[in-house]
Amino acid sequence: MRPTQTPAVIDTLVLCRWLLPIVPKDRILQDYAVAIHDGRIVDLCPQSEATIRFKADTTLCLQEHLVMPGLINAHVHAGVRLLRGAAPHMTDESDLHSRLWPADLGILNADFVRDSTRLAMAEMIRSGTTCFANMYFLPEIAAEAARDCGMRCQLSFPVFDCVDAAGQNGELQIRKGLQLHDHYRGQPSIKVACAPSALSDETLTKIATYANELDLSIHINMHETQAEIAQSLHLYGERPLQRLFNLGLLMPATQLVHMTQLSEEDCALVEQCNAQVIYCPESNLYHANGVCPIDQLSERDVNVALGTDGAPNCGLDLFAELKSAALRRRTQQSHPDPLLPHQALRMVTIDGARALGWHAEIGSLEHGKYADMIAIEMHALEQQPLYNLASHIVQGHTGARVSHSWISGRLVMQDRQLLTLNEQGVIARAHAWQKHVGEPDRNQGTR
Amino acid sequence: MRPTQTPAVIDTLVLCRWLLPIVPKDRILQDYAVAIHDGRIVDLCPQSEATIRFKADTTLCLQEHLVMPGLINAHVHAGVRLLRGAAPHMTDESDLHSRLWPADLGILNADFVRDSTRLAMAEMIRSGTTCFANMYFLPEIAAEAARDCGMRCQLSFPVFDCVDAAGQNGELQIRKGLQLHDHYRGQPSIKVACAPSALSDETLTKIATYANELDLSIHINMHETQAEIAQSLHLYGERPLQRLFNLGLLMPATQLVHMTQLSEEDCALVEQCNAQVIYCPESNLYHANGVCPIDQLSERDVNVALGTDGAPNCGLDLFAELKSAALRRRTQQSHPDPLLPHQALRMVTIDGARALGWHAEIGSLEHGKYADMIAIEMHALEQQPLYNLASHIVQGHTGARVSHSWISGRLVMQDRQLLTLNEQGVIARAHAWQKHVGEPDRNQGTR
Repeated sequence: MRPTQTPAVIDTLVLCRWLLPIVPKDRILQDYAVAIHDGRIVDLCPQSEATIRFKADTTLCLQEHLVMPGLINAHVHAGVRLLRGAAPHMTDESDLHSRLWPADLGILNADFVRDSTRLAMAEMIRSGTTCFANMYFLPEIAAEAARDCGMRCQLSFPVFDCVDAAGQNGELQIRKGLQLHDHYRGQPSIKVACAPSALSDETLTKIATYANELDLSIHINMHETQAEIAQSLHLYGERPLQRLFNLGLLMPATQLVHMTQLSEEDCALVEQCNAQVIYCPESNLYHANGVCPIDQLSERDVNVALGTDGAPNCGLDLFAELKSAALRRRTQQSHPDPLLPHQALRMVTIDGARALGWHAEIGSLEHGKYADMIAIEMHALEQQPLYNLASHIVQGHTGARVSHSWISGRLVMQDRQLLTLNEQGVIARAHAWQKHVGEPDRNQGTR
Repeated sequence: MRPTQTPAVIDTLVLCRWLLPIVPKDRILQDYAVAIHDGRIVDLCPQSEATIRFKADTTLCLQEHLVMPGLINAHVHAGVRLLRGAAPHMTDESDLHSRLWPADLGILNADFVRDSTRLAMAEMIRSGTTCFANMYFLPEIAAEAARDCGMRCQLSFPVFDCVDAAGQNGELQIRKGLQLHDHYRGQPSIKVACAPSALSDETLTKIATYANELDLSIHINMHETQAEIAQSLHLYGERPLQRLFNLGLLMPATQLVHMTQLSEEDCALVEQCNAQVIYCPESNLYHANGVCPIDQLSERDVNVALGTDGAPNCGLDLFAELKSAALRRRTQQSHPDPLLPHQALRMVTIDGARALGWHAEIGSLEHGKYADMIAIEMHALEQQPLYNLASHIVQGHTGARVSHSWISGRLVMQDRQLLTLNEQGVIARAHAWQKHVGEPDRNQGTR
């Protein structure tokens, strides 16, 4: 006979029809439970066991749902989200230009960045993202907004050689960025990285020194366009990646964003330095910048994560990027292997965590990790019949089916209702900004 | 003073915040109304006018919605929808193989095709499609299912040289197909076309004769793969399109599906014959079959419509195809123009109608046309701020935001509730078939 045991008292018990833990690989467990206490996962076990072993303050029964780790959006410009769609035909403009646009409009201020970041976070939570890597001005404002709503994030402070949009020169940008880095050191949900943008050897060398001394990650757009490479060859006589290496900035904590223009030598260099790659499929497609060779990089065991970017027209639904990445993979070779569903799902979870240096804490549902996780409804007509769950999640429009989201065990969305952001307030601010900005493309058709 | 006038009595008045009529071009009207009587649009006018001029049996107030023509899915295999996801890695199999698969499984019967078609129609209505062009076995069963639920469709009967999956030879396939064509002649919502598949000169010539005599459209997969072209060159000494022309089968009522492998001469031939092109972006991407050159075809004024196909893993959301088509357009040239949102929207409405020879009746919201239309909710957080409606509809995940659908003025979906199909019944049948079929890929991972 089973010995009587006193149930352990925990914060939350989530019972679900299917559990996709990501680690171990390629596994989906049925009728499982996740036990959460003090923000972390304390157990994963069959429901029948869980209800005997645990006594939870809150128990959620999600019997038509799949539970998996929250998604990690490894590259986004949340601070410019409020201008999405304002210039639908701004297609040949650079990523940098679109980020600077609020400055041109005279609205690059704390209110704009706060409202924009909140809107972006609301959209990300509603589509299954629980952690994001942000690259935008006024990172201290984004940090406050993220802390208030409980989202996990890496914020990178931009550094230019010239005076930036906020009127600060490179020296000041670095100094203020390092203060912020210091301020959030040791915080479990917020970390600060450095985002160098088009810099002199001198400034980059200085950043490399800080990066090594202060355990500072580097988040940098790299080999996104042919023009960028041509310019580097012209100015410095070497490709941007090689230059980064020579200046001591290519290391495991370097996050290389885009990487659509890669030679064999480039791939070998990334492998050698164990640097991180972040691919933004829809942005690269939208700007006609090519495709990141995830096949070749994966063969070299280079870690590849996914990001949405924040281009003028792209959404922040990482599941949509996942589908694009999986579909596009097949055009890269004449006889391509398909990107297997479980492999694709790792890119937006554990590989995303690894890219940000957070893989010991998040990215999979394992004992001891933070309970950053989402529940997805699996009973819609479009999802029937359900032959292969992983494939359905990759190919279907999954972002809109995310019903619950937890970050560090805290419920931030329940049945699609945001609990830490005021949805109607966020929408009202978006309308107010739209009125303020006007309709920049009103000359394009009637509306 | 305005003279008093007696309001006209009509069936339905739909008041909406925005109206996208498609014709005239590039226009979005605000605070408009659509007046519907006897299945057709009898007027489009400002709401203020409409409420004075019409007295409707039913008035719908959709003040946060955009109303536009229902989408036209110009190529789908509805009869095989029940097997979607059953073989997620069946990537190198041909379209034909996936269509024949139910025969291999011994389930190609009336029940399977009926249940499959109903599931497909439910999915299509829920994502904004009101009319579809179907290519599958047992078209008489699909016709009944479509008639019962009120969907408009073109059903094409497959013709092979050999005995087909239902045990009929080519002669019998043609004879039965022509009977069906005859049966539905003059019906406003169902028409029957012929779908020749890999045929001898003799059979194709016979079909050409019938096509000319009986006003029969031809719906045919064409230049989808390099292998198909190589085989035709080997067997007949000419490319498939040239052969179709030589046999008298390339005409305005010929619907050429896929068309991803086109030379300049191929494009010129299509232009010369004024034939229709149907592009299936996600299917072509999934099978790594290339891209239909919609730029070059459009420059020649060749009409291009969109279809979802029914490949093992693709959904039936035509808005998703629209987004893929718009994004992919940009990879076709080194300096591509973007596919403008309004242009993209025409591909799934008026150009779809033209491809099926139905442009006098549907495809735009115009006086006298059938009231085939949909309403889309525009107030979700993801849609804010709303700078450019057309761009939002193309780039956003619009399929899931369709709230209402009318076909010939009949409401078939209201607030996402299907009115002419039993949603729970359709899902129950899907589960029953899943049990029957089993899980063909259960060896791929744990599930």
